[in-house]
Amino acid sequence: MLSISIPRPKCLQKPLAVPQRHMFGPGPSNVPPRIIEAGAKPVIGHMHPELLQIMDDIKSGIQYIFQTQNPMTLAVSSTGHSAMECAFVNSVEPGDGVLVAVNGLWGERAMDIAERLGSRVNTIVAPPGAFFSNAEIEQALSKYRPVMFFLAHGESSTGVLHPLDGIGQLCHKYNCLFVVDSVASFGSAPLCMDQQDIDIVYTGSQKVLNAPPGTAPISFSERACQKIFNRKTKPVSFALDLKWLASYWGCDGKPSRVYHHTGPVSGFYSLRESLAVFAEEGLEKSWERHGKVAEYFHAGLENMGLKLFVKEKKARLPAVTTIVAPHGYDWKEIQSYIMKTHDLEISGGLGPSAGLVLRVGLMGCNSTKENVDMVLAALKDALKHCHKSKV
Amino acid sequence: MLSISIPRPKCLQKPLAVPQRHMFGPGPSNVPPRIIEAGAKPVIGHMHPELLQIMDDIKSGIQYIFQTQNPMTLAVSSTGHSAMECAFVNSVEPGDGVLVAVNGLWGERAMDIAERLGSRVNTIVAPPGAFFSNAEIEQALSKYRPVMFFLAHGESSTGVLHPLDGIGQLCHKYNCLFVVDSVASFGSAPLCMDQQDIDIVYTGSQKVLNAPPGTAPISFSERACQKIFNRKTKPVSFALDLKWLASYWGCDGKPSRVYHHTGPVSGFYSLRESLAVFAEEGLEKSWERHGKVAEYFHAGLENMGLKLFVKEKKARLPAVTTIVAPHGYDWKEIQSYIMKTHDLEISGGLGPSAGLVLRVGLMGCNSTKENVDMVLAALKDALKHCHKSKV
Repeated sequence: MLSISIPRPKCLQKPLAVPQRHMFGPGPSNVPPRIIEAGAKPVIGHMHPELLQIMDDIKSGIQYIFQTQNPMTLAVSSTGHSAMECAFVNSVEPGDGVLVAVNGLWGERAMDIAERLGSRVNTIVAPPGAFFSNAEIEQALSKYRPVMFFLAHGESSTGVLHPLDGIGQLCHKYNCLFVVDSVASFGSAPLCMDQQDIDIVYTGSQKVLNAPPGTAPISFSERACQKIFNRKTKPVSFALDLKWLASYWGCDGKPSRVYHHTGPVSGFYSLRESLAVFAEEGLEKSWERHGKVAEYFHAGLENMGLKLFVKEKKARLPAVTTIVAPHGYDWKEIQSYIMKTHDLEISGGLGPSAGLVLRVGLMGCNSTKENVDMVLAALKDALKHCHKSKV
Repeated sequence: MLSISIPRPKCLQKPLAVPQRHMFGPGPSNVPPRIIEAGAKPVIGHMHPELLQIMDDIKSGIQYIFQTQNPMTLAVSSTGHSAMECAFVNSVEPGDGVLVAVNGLWGERAMDIAERLGSRVNTIVAPPGAFFSNAEIEQALSKYRPVMFFLAHGESSTGVLHPLDGIGQLCHKYNCLFVVDSVASFGSAPLCMDQQDIDIVYTGSQKVLNAPPGTAPISFSERACQKIFNRKTKPVSFALDLKWLASYWGCDGKPSRVYHHTGPVSGFYSLRESLAVFAEEGLEKSWERHGKVAEYFHAGLENMGLKLFVKEKKARLPAVTTIVAPHGYDWKEIQSYIMKTHDLEISGGLGPSAGLVLRVGLMGCNSTKENVDMVLAALKDALKHCHKSKV
């Protein structure tokens, strides 16, 4: 006979309390009421026709935001990280050569994922804040002859926006798939998947799209599908197996969908709404707005005497700005002062940029001059009130 | 110069419309307003102290619902399927022997996952609707000497509730981990992880817990952790790597949490609230209520002349009832008549039960006599109005 020995936890008797905060870190960003409300609609079945229609709408939305005609376009039922894993798990077989551009945390993570899958990983490495020339990339492609090249378009750990032009063509010249992580760049800087010969691109819901975290748009080119659907081995993950996902999302051209997993129904609602909001403004206007707001922000920072971590203007990620941690201050104190005094999140560094920078994300609806002014005022206030060390 | 060639999709200009429906299939189930509202609170950061506190509350809630003191208790940031994958990906190394009890779809899926990981899979197989004796299980354990034995407590495809007593002890006698899928059984039938010597158990948010799909409670015993943290190879998945998850969830005893992925913040809110609602009623009362409502339902079905798919009373899953597809009818017509006329979802079979059964799920807040009466009335109405074939 079973008996209850673990009592009900007292902590669950307290009501759930969540503060309202300006989410100006590198994501998640603030979720506007319209998208929150969409996510609060009644839950229906993961195979109900209305939900399949919503998934179709999401697919069209993702084709638009990535500027692609790929039928193999869908949302992974988890965060951007799982989308990265989905790209690798499906494309790479044990022994395959993978080339990873490492200029921050996301390259490191991609390397880790590729290694776990038993691929032969080679890297090109640049210091935090820097990026690669096409010549360097071509040299590595020619030397290592990988089946896949990974590049973070937006390296949110260092604030670098990597140039993309010509790299897809280079990859294809060497018969290699071009995989782009656009989690932190999407919507804030130009990217057109088909025109730029990108084979796999993904992003997350919680950045410029302003939806809650938990879904991740991804698209696969015909070339990527060719490799994926001619694998000799099954992908190690059932949950991320593109054959199953393609069927659930109706990307395989077959009339009926097959149950694979229970999609995050509420997450699909908010993702659809976020795509609708985004499409209302339009890609070009979103790129333009993020670019202008970032310029205004960067000028304001420099006027305050702060330094930007990324030297080259054109390589600055508009959605996530990295500021050199002000000399003589403890960056943690600045961050927590601003959180406490201004209800405003800015973030420290991550991975290779830890301790070196402060990071400010102004994404989607948060990317406005008013918010820039708010952040600048908060920073000024913090520099006045935080302890200046005597070193 | 990039140019926009894919226009904004027209479908996204239509407002998001979602029907209100009685969700009486095998899940997702209806989400009550209190839990919906929790999920609609403002999104904060995935590492903010308030969110870490919410995650701690969730951990306590899961320890309560599974009746375990395991510190290694957390929620996977995806659906129950990923929790299944999380169990296997961490515990199994290539070449390890895995024994899977297959008496429905979930055993088949577990087998698929284990095979992808390169383990040596053996099975014991029972026809849909049946289950295994402890003697059969011991025989297989002794023959195959696996490192892990998988059993679905609730086989939602066939409606079987598998007995658990004594199996954990058998597994440990043969130095084998006991892994239990309780996605469809949790909260509706007794399960006490520690008392029943279960090494890994998981469930989903969208069944008896009545939260939206997208998070999955899971717990690992000390014995499971011993195997997992002494692996020779890294788990193939970074996203599901327990070392990283343990750090993010503060299960590793270290004072500071390390960023791993962006947790589904809104999903954590609704999961916490669903655990709070569940704890208010209490485990024993929930088991009792689901049991009584199921008995009342089953009697009502038999009074109507319908047959239950699972012969043995004690092996009937209280939360998901499988009804033999009524002779002379097309089950699909019954299902769609009820959906259209009564705004009520019941479901057909799945995997090995496809075409054989109708499935009705009454889970969490849906498990009431009033809802039983509603389903019975809908079924009666359908049997009156649907076409009886002349065969």
